[in-house]
Amino acid sequence: MRLYDNQDSGNCWKVRQLLALLEIPYERIEVDVIDRSNRRELLGGKNPALRVPTLELDDGHHLAESNAILWYFGDGTPFVPSGPLERARVLQWMFFEQYEVEPNLAVARFWIHLLGARDRYATELEGKWKAGNRALEAIDERLSEGDWLVGDAFSIADISVYGYTHLAEDGGFDLEPYPSVRAWLERVASRPGYVPLDA
Amino acid sequence: MRLYDNQDSGNCWKVRQLLALLEIPYERIEVDVIDRSNRRELLGGKNPALRVPTLELDDGHHLAESNAILWYFGDGTPFVPSGPLERARVLQWMFFEQYEVEPNLAVARFWIHLLGARDRYATELEGKWKAGNRALEAIDERLSEGDWLVGDAFSIADISVYGYTHLAEDGGFDLEPYPSVRAWLERVASRPGYVPLDA
Repeated sequence: MRLYDNQDSGNCWKVRQLLALLEIPYERIEVDVIDRSNRRELLGGKNPALRVPTLELDDGHHLAESNAILWYFGDGTPFVPSGPLERARVLQWMFFEQYEVEPNLAVARFWIHLLGARDRYATELEGKWKAGNRALEAIDERLSEGDWLVGDAFSIADISVYGYTHLAEDGGFDLEPYPSVRAWLERVASRPGYVPLDA
Repeated sequence: MRLYDNQDSGNCWKVRQLLALLEIPYERIEVDVIDRSNRRELLGGKNPALRVPTLELDDGHHLAESNAILWYFGDGTPFVPSGPLERARVLQWMFFEQYEVEPNLAVARFWIHLLGARDRYATELEGKWKAGNRALEAIDERLSEGDWLVGDAFSIADISVYGYTHLAEDGGFDLEPYPSVRAWLERVASRPGYVPLDA
């Protein structure tokens, strides 16, 4: 199995973290996230969005979207709950992550931390910070009521939302106002089998 | 069961379409998408994103995110496939929808069609059209190979992506370059049990 991957990507980290927890071996193919000129050549016919992560299974089939990959491997393991409402809640938080978290936290981080272009994106960053802080507030509210995002167990919803939340400061966010988020980040990073971004 | 709903929302339409196909009765509560001043009062504690659709189940639990609601009701019916890879592909297209389709097609439509503010958003619209056309191209490519987005059957992935794709022209998009998308829109609208947006 091959993972079209990028070391610095929070979306790719999610997949690497789950595959490590499940002890599933795979080959990593590093894909550039700044020079995207070879994306169609590399990922055309494999991922409609031409993004990483993209997974190539042993039988040659492909699967895209980090959270869909988490579900594919996670379903049937302790990292996806069994009750219908809890399963849908896991998906709820993963859709929230792709709509409210990633487009704000990851994009701000990309501009500041990966492109080094904070000044060039000064106007757009204001909008990202505002919307990203609303998302952090919502996560903090949920985590003030429980240790994990869904039910009372660590799940792929936590892996998903952790992906860019633990990198928020790279995007100019301040996590000080979110004590429940900070405690949860520490809980995730203290779990057995935790894989750091740069591993 | 109660659905916090909006008549004009493609995200809400998805849920109304699936519930109609499954003949599940529910009460609709119309929520304003322009004046959002009562959102916390109305949806606080029910949906972290304070958006519609939000579902209130008979036992008082809530569920948010249109695509998570589709999964909750669709899983175990003919609208969600049974094979693990096909199930993950349904999720792949629904995550694609929330990341690549909705933020471009729905937001352009909101500015032009619901706010009547095409001139005010002229600059931002250029970016939405560019990214939205990339998404339409990817959907067209997939639909040039098959009648439906996943496997050979209509699924909640089709309901999800149809939601805003069939409203693309309201956002200033031209579907003429996408013949496979246009044929698929007609296929969806010709299915028994199809519910129009204004129903």
